[in-house]
Formats: sequence, C-alpha cells, structure tokens
Amino acid sequence: MTPSAPHEALHHWVISLVCPDQPGIVHAVSGAIVSARGNITESQQFSSADTGRFFIRLQVESPAGRDEIQSALDPVIARYGMHAIVDVVGRPLRTLVLASTAGHCVNDLLFRQRAGQLPVQIPLVLSNHGTLRDLVGFYSVPFESLPITDAASKSAFEARVVEAVEKHDIELVVLARYMQILSPELCARLEGMAINIHHSFLPGFKGANPYKQAHARGVKLIGATAHFVTSDLDEGPIIEQNVVRVDHSRTASELVAIGQDEESRTLSQAVKWFAENRVLQDGARTIIFK
Amino acid sequence: MTPSAPHEALHHWVISLVCPDQPGIVHAVSGAIVSARGNITESQQFSSADTGRFFIRLQVESPAGRDEIQSALDPVIARYGMHAIVDVVGRPLRTLVLASTAGHCVNDLLFRQRAGQLPVQIPLVLSNHGTLRDLVGFYSVPFESLPITDAASKSAFEARVVEAVEKHDIELVVLARYMQILSPELCARLEGMAINIHHSFLPGFKGANPYKQAHARGVKLIGATAHFVTSDLDEGPIIEQNVVRVDHSRTASELVAIGQDEESRTLSQAVKWFAENRVLQDGARTIIFK
Amino acid sequence: MTPSAPHEALHHWVISLVCPDQPGIVHAVSGAIVSARGNITESQQFSSADTGRFFIRLQVESPAGRDEIQSALDPVIARYGMHAIVDVVGRPLRTLVLASTAGHCVNDLLFRQRAGQLPVQIPLVLSNHGTLRDLVGFYSVPFESLPITDAASKSAFEARVVEAVEKHDIELVVLARYMQILSPELCARLEGMAINIHHSFLPGFKGANPYKQAHARGVKLIGATAHFVTSDLDEGPIIEQNVVRVDHSRTASELVAIGQDEESRTLSQAVKWFAENRVLQDGARTIIFK
Amino acid sequence: MTPSAPHEALHHWVISLVCPDQPGIVHAVSGAIVSARGNITESQQFSSADTGRFFIRLQVESPAGRDEIQSALDPVIARYGMHAIVDVVGRPLRTLVLASTAGHCVNDLLFRQRAGQLPVQIPLVLSNHGTLRDLVGFYSVPFESLPITDAASKSAFEARVVEAVEKHDIELVVLARYMQILSPELCARLEGMAINIHHSFLPGFKGANPYKQAHARGVKLIGATAHFVTSDLDEGPIIEQNVVRVDHSRTASELVAIGQDEESRTLSQAVKWFAENRVLQDGARTIIFK
Repeated sequence: MTPSAPHEALHHWVISLVCPDQPGIVHAVSGAIVSARGNITESQQFSSADTGRFFIRLQVESPAGRDEIQSALDPVIARYGMHAIVDVVGRPLRTLVLASTAGHCVNDLLFRQRAGQLPVQIPLVLSNHGTLRDLVGFYSVPFESLPITDAASKSAFEARVVEAVEKHDIELVVLARYMQILSPELCARLEGMAINIHHSFLPGFKGANPYKQAHARGVKLIGATAHFVTSDLDEGPIIEQNVVRVDHSRTASELVAIGQDEESRTLSQAVKWFAENRVLQDGARTIIFK
Repeated sequence: MTPSAPHEALHHWVISLVCPDQPGIVHAVSGAIVSARGNITESQQFSSADTGRFFIRLQVESPAGRDEIQSALDPVIARYGMHAIVDVVGRPLRTLVLASTAGHCVNDLLFRQRAGQLPVQIPLVLSNHGTLRDLVGFYSVPFESLPITDAASKSAFEARVVEAVEKHDIELVVLARYMQILSPELCARLEGMAINIHHSFLPGFKGANPYKQAHARGVKLIGATAHFVTSDLDEGPIIEQNVVRVDHSRTASELVAIGQDEESRTLSQAVKWFAENRVLQDGARTIIFK
Repeated sequence: MTPSAPHEALHHWVISLVCPDQPGIVHAVSGAIVSARGNITESQQFSSADTGRFFIRLQVESPAGRDEIQSALDPVIARYGMHAIVDVVGRPLRTLVLASTAGHCVNDLLFRQRAGQLPVQIPLVLSNHGTLRDLVGFYSVPFESLPITDAASKSAFEARVVEAVEKHDIELVVLARYMQILSPELCARLEGMAINIHHSFLPGFKGANPYKQAHARGVKLIGATAHFVTSDLDEGPIIEQNVVRVDHSRTASELVAIGQDEESRTLSQAVKWFAENRVLQDGARTIIFK
Repeated sequence: MTPSAPHEALHHWVISLVCPDQPGIVHAVSGAIVSARGNITESQQFSSADTGRFFIRLQVESPAGRDEIQSALDPVIARYGMHAIVDVVGRPLRTLVLASTAGHCVNDLLFRQRAGQLPVQIPLVLSNHGTLRDLVGFYSVPFESLPITDAASKSAFEARVVEAVEKHDIELVVLARYMQILSPELCARLEGMAINIHHSFLPGFKGANPYKQAHARGVKLIGATAHFVTSDLDEGPIIEQNVVRVDHSRTASELVAIGQDEESRTLSQAVKWFAENRVLQDGARTIIFK
C-alpha cells in the first residue's frame, strides 16, 4: 500500500541491482525506496557463493517519477558500486529477431507478442532467406531478407544487424533458429543481449545431426535450451530448459518435429523473462527471478 | 558477508514475519537485521492482493544469539503487528506421524529423515493397526498401535494423539495415509500444524473409490495433493501437488500403485518445506517460499 | 518388408477394428493382411476388461488398392462382427472448427496444419463472433461468423453447423474455445466426432469462474483436458490431459494465460491422434493407440 | 476370452520374439497361439527401420502348460530364425545387486520388491563397503562386502560377482550406484543383463564432478539415465530417463540430493520393465514395450 494522495497516479517500477555482497544492502535499498514514497510489491534476491555478488530485483509502486526514483537510489548505487537498471514494469523491449527458414519459433514469438503475453516490440525480423515473409507480414511486422552465401555476404548480413540494432536502439536480439554462427565480433557486440535456442538431449550429442545421433542411441527425452549467445558456441549461460518424453517408435524426423515445439515454448519463455528484467548474469550462470 | 570478528561463530537464523501490508516494512526489518549484526543470505516476500497481508521469510547469518536477534526484531514486530517466527536453520521439527496399514509414505519419510534429507525428528509413529511395526522399528523409531473400531476407540486414539502432541511438544502432525477422518475437535486443535496427503485426479472425483471412477472415465493423469488438515475434509489449503501420466492399459489397481509413488514424494516435499518454515498460510491459500 | 514386384508402388493403410473379444482374432486379421500382400508396420491392440471388447489398430504397407484390402478383410469383419475403418495413412481429415473470441487454440491448429504437423483439412471456421476473421484469413481458411444472442440465433447457428457438416462431409468438429453449450440434438448428431477442450484443476472446481476458485484455493497445478463432446457437459470420454506448475504469486488472470497454452497444445494433440485414427472409444473411456 | 473347460486353470505367459522382418510373422505367431489354446491379452510389436528386425511381445492366457506353448511355437521360431523368450507373467527375476556406500537406490529397490511392486528376487547384495549392511538386513536380504583397494581386490570382487551369478543362476545384475568401472571381461560376461544408473544433465557434462560443472553452467534440469552396461562407459543402450527442474539457488550438493531421487525412481522403473520382459535391444537402441 502506498501513502500517496488519493488521486495521485501510481507508477510501477522494476529495479534490478547487482553489486559485491556485504551486510546492509537491503536496508539501504529499502530506505531509498521509502524515501521515494515507494511500496515494494515484489522482491527477490540472491547472494552468489560462486562470485560473492549480490543480486536483487524489486517491483515498486510509487507516485514518484523516474527522476525521483533515480535520485533516491543514486547514493546507494554509488556507495555499493552497483550495476543498476530502473525501468517501467511492462515496457515492451525493443527486440530484433533473426531467423532463417524455420517458422515455428518466429510464429510463436509473434503470436504471443500480439496476444499481449510477451512484452516486446519488434521493429524488424531479419532473415537470410525469404521464406517467412508472409508469416511475418501477417503480424504487420517489417521483414527483410539478405542472402548469406559466402564470407562477404555474411559480413554484410552482420553489418545490417549492427545497423538495425543501432537504428532501432535494440535491447534484445533473438536468434529464432537463425542457424548461422555469429562472428566473434558480433558476439562481443551483442554480449548479454542476444538469446539463442538449441535442441538438447540426454546425454548431450555434439557435432552434426544430433537428432540422428539421439535416435541411434534411443534417447527417451528430448528438449531445448535457451541461452545467451557467447563466442563459445552453444555454451553460453543457460536461461531455460525443457524436455519432453519420446519412445523408440519415433523416427529421427519426428524427433525434429517434437523438438520444435520445445524450442518454441522455451525460447518464448526465455524472452519473456529477459524482457521483464528477470534474467541476471552471474559469471557463466544466470539468476532467474521468476 | 558478515562483519564479525574472525573467530566468532556464525549462527544461521530463519525468520518469518506476517503482517498487514504497508510501506516501509522491508526497510524496518532489514534495519533490525543490520543492528543484530546479521547478513541476509536468503529472502522472499509476497504481498497478498487477496488479504492485504505481507509475508517475508529471511535466512540470516550472524554471530548474534537468539536474544540479540529477538531484541532487535521486537520493536519492529510490535510496530507492524507481526506474527513472527525466529528459528535455527535446519533444526529438526518435532513431528508425530499418524499411519494406518499402508507403508509407502511412512517408509519414504523415515528413509529421507535418516538420510538427512528431511529436517524432522520423529518421537512416535502412531497407527490404528500393527502392520507397520517392523518397518518403523527398523528405523529405530518408537511405534504404537491402538485399534479404532468404534466411536469410543476413535476418541481414545485421538486422546492419545493429543497426549503425544503435548508430551513431545509436537510441532507437526503428518497424516501418512492415516485414512481416518479427524474429529472437528482434533482438527481445531491441530489447525495449521497437520498435513494430509490424498490422491488427485483431473477432473476431480468425489466420493468413494475415486481410482475406480478415474479408471472408468479413462483419465490420463493421476496425482497427489498435500494439504493442511481442516474440518472441511480434503479441502484444506494446498501445499504441493504432483501428477504422473497413465494410459488406458492401466487397471484400477495399477493406478493405485502409481498414485502411491506420487503420494510419497508429494507428502515428503510438503513436510520438508513446512519443516523449513517455507509454508505460510494466507486465508485458504498457502505461500510457499521455496 | 513386402513381397511386391520391384516397381510396384506401395500404399500405406491404417486399419482399425473393434469387436467382442474372443480367441483367434489376431490370427484371422493377420491372415487377411497376408492375403492382401500386406506387411504390418505398426500394430497396437487392447482387450478391455470393462466391456469385453477387443481393439486393434494396424498400419499396413501393400501394393494392394482399397478394393483388394477391403475384400480380404470383409470375411473377417463379418465373422467377428467388427466395426471397421480402413483409411489411407496421412489423409487429411475434413475438419470443421467452431470458435468464439479466443484465438489461441485456433491459431495453434491452423499453424500446425500449415506446417504439416496436423493431418486435417479445414474448409471452414465458424464463430459466433467476428474477432478471429483476420487471423483465420491469414491462413487462407474460410471464416464465417453468426452471432448468438438468444435461443433463435443459437438454433440458427447450430443449423449452420449441421449444414456445413453435411456440405463438406465433415469427419471431425473441433470446439476450439467455442464457449457455447451444444444442444442435446447437436451433441447426438456429432456423437464420437466432436472434440472439446476445457481447463482442468486439481482438485476439480465445478461451476462459474473456476480459475478464480483455483486461485482462492492456491492450486499448484493447472491444466487442460481434451474430451469428446457428450450431452453431459464436460464429462465426455477423456482423450488427452496436460498440466503445468504454478505458484502463489500468479494472479487469477495469469492462471488464465498459462491455462491457454495448455489448452492449445492439448487440443492439437487430441486432434492429431483422432485424425490418425488413434482414438477409439470403449464406453466412457478412450483407447489411445499412440 | 479363452475356450477352456470351465474349471481348467489358466496360465499367463509372456512371449517375446525377435527376428528379421518379413511379411506373415504375426499371422504365423498368432496361429501358434491359437493352436495352443491361447488368447492374446497384450501385444506390442515394432519393426526397426534401422536394423530390419521385427520385435513382438505378447501376453497370452491359456490352459496350456509350458511344453504345449513351446511345442506350438517351435516351428515358427525355426522358420523365422527367431530369438525367443517364453516365461510366466510375474515370475520374479533372480537379481544380483551391486552397491557401494550410497543407499538411496538400494533402499528403493528393496522397498518396492517387498511391497510387491517389483518382480525380482534378490539372493544377494554385494558391495565394496559395509555401509549398507543394516539397511539390507532389515529387508532380510543377504549382504556381503568385499573391499576394493587395488587391482587384485577388484579382480577378487569381480570373481565373486561371476560366482554369485552362476550359483544363483542370476538373470539381472543391477549396479545400484556401484561406482566402480567393470572390467571389459565382466562387461562381456554380463552383456545385455546388467543395468546401470547414472546422472544426466542438459547439456551433458563429461569427466569428473559433473554436478559441479552443471552448477557452474547454471543448468535448469537435472536427471538420471538407466542404461545397459557396455564396455563403453556410460554409453550403453538407454532404457529410461527422467529429469527434474532446478534453479540458481541450488548448491552443487543440493543438486546431488535431487539427482539421487531421480536415480532411484529411474533405476527401479528400468528394473521393473526388464523383469517384465519389456526391454528388448535393437543394436544400440532399446525397444520398450510398456
């Protein structure tokens, strides 16, 4: 409950703070919130034994505007050496989608976005194929395709990515089965703001055609992993994972179809949490405040 | 990190607080923790839109003993009208187990307790049958059976329950497939401290022999629900639920066997959370700080 | 493997047979398959202890055409009093979709149909609202809306359903969140060929606004049940069920959103199995040969 | 239904047959069953596109004894070059359990065996440590420990395994967290009759201390895989897999505890299916007729 005047509109703020752990942080932060006339409606924190860092995510309702909130927090941020994000709850994240020919992840993202279940705003879907033009157009989202056939066209594609990121002030890049390895330069440029989806198996199969390998070994579970893009291919910090049960009667191509469903829902879930500022990185791990 | 002297032993405290929601609670509580030389290592909170109550559970490490912690918190507790619990992390909860003839839940509880996975201390298993005497004895837990054959013997059994609760200063009563309806008086006596397990189906089947009904309708999922005991039979606040998939080839008796596995793990999970002070009641709902 | 001439094309047949159980059925059926030059590539059978009926579903590859297959089977069908279906594997089922305003199930069905994951052919989506016109149009599927405001308009809507069923020789009617109770007459007309989806909770909540009830009780699992439509509302034979875990922090409206995902995938799964002739009814139960 | 004389006792047979696939097998097998006065109560088959082999498992009720069943099948077995197993439904499998210090899998196996949920008969638990003596003794199962400290004592242990296998006519060896690598000779001796359990992660982590690696990468799912023992360590055909969800707050040691639950239930499930003749090998894959 907030001690605001009866007719003063309430704002909803999401605040995430990361700093070296030490006593008194919560007290200092909550003091700043009180001074900015805020009420904490949601709060999660975590102290990492691995890195000695402290993570907190708050949702706060307050009649205060951004300046008042920020002013109240600034001394605390300075004192504890915090990395801070202050944002409006529910603000759509400016998101660039990279795709190739497979439509399942793109369709799932666009459908949920339109249904109001995914707080993203997508100014562009960029693909190295034209296959998904109609699908994307149905959702009234701009679509652009640039073929990748060699090193030069790949560089051009990546240059276009960077250009779009800058032009639209992109906050998140989603690789929705983009199927191309990003250059180390682009990985570095997008560090911490690009999410990829890939299939997962127990046990893990590396190399070409993992579904065929999984089939050959007779796996009983297949799944998907959404993770941050890093230069170490498919080894970035894990955001979300799901699996589904399969049996011996499934062909390798059926495994692919089943895997696609898991990819769609796992990627959309990861994007949703990221857009809600629920995903924080702690070295090679993620803290998910869900 | 705690600013204690190098060789001063750290205690680990769990603190749960419930009160009407209002601004400033977190600030006040965290101030008390700081003043008691504590560092918050785990924290979860929830504001109930249903009841307007605020819930917080903290784990704190501090060189302070109970008196120092309690003294620091007392003014805050008084100011906000809090219901407060301050306990030692990992302290085994004094737990009375009620059973009948089925051994699956009892075995699961006792095995986990002995394996160090369940912070309970069980001074007595009380049953209306002698069936489980050997099983319970193997775990070196006292066992007592008192037949229930009519209203008088039922009253005697319940009187023995109350006696045991008082003698052993019991904090939790687990109905591990006890299969008897508690009298309203005993429900009232054990309010908020007794956990029951029962089968669950989608859709729910009321009345006698639910497994037979579920079989007749061809359910595809069966499960278990652990809940607080209330005088409204099987309608108490839900603590945990699980399901498992079944198909048309299962007989009604196979459904029973499958359901027992779900009952065991669901009940043990609920007991564990309760023993760790992770289960708070909010009207007819539970807040689970897991 | 099939003893066909090298260049003779193979057909793929799905055969489902239901009859009173007695010895020798499999031998008789497999003899007919051999005589029609067929090889059994998939086979599932079930003897119902509840009804004394025998169920078998076969996939057969053979150079034989429909007449040859049917002629080989006819004496067996006659001898055992079988209910028989002989169909081409993968033939799209003529499917009528009934909808209202909610788009999640309709979108899921149409996307999967277009992606080749759902063997249905949809000549019409019929709704009592115009809301989904654009969505359906994107998939190039005819859409028609007829308002339901009173008994007369409801009768008109149902008359249009029957007309469409007859005109398009419909084999399956999917109630994709149609939200209207069918008249007993329409239930009877569509018996065994109409599939509905509804939310499910543990424990089950009857009556109005079940999500609100589920929220009030603090359920930990919510899900969906796909079932055949019968005049006994929401009590028809169950085809498929799924659940997903939720916690105390979810609002009633979030439960609705989560439930919609389960509804979409559960309904699509049920439709897929039905279209593949994998769903057989045994009294109030379904046999699912997946 | 079986055409037996009213008072003639029925036997329940399980028959599994494997041979190169060709047309007419089902007809030939079902003819043999008819001639042995049998009724097929359960039947599953699979044609492997990978190896060209055909698998069938039948449950048959018949007044015929073993000789009559076997005589009826023998010509079919000879004609198709079948590998055949004919057994009594529910006969307890003679099972040797190898263990080390961890009790969770051993306890789960023994409890289920005693509860009548696992059709095995265990003449001996053999361990390289004495830790589990009391636990095993409680279930009245003989226990023997032989330390393994060097190559010579390891050879002695394995010689004791072979001796026990021969003396008790063992049909299944369960490695219930035995934690020792079997020699190639013992692997060869136990081929197709030894089941191991190991932890599983998405993605898979090879090498020492996988839970620590999984923790470092922040996995969201951990699980267990039950598989046949082969000389290629942890790469044998998979029988069953399960996973459970975890989050960032779990320590590496908590991951171990959670993983143990999955190991217990996954191993018991695999043993149950194997004991019921539901697990057939197809090259590096398993066919599970569940």
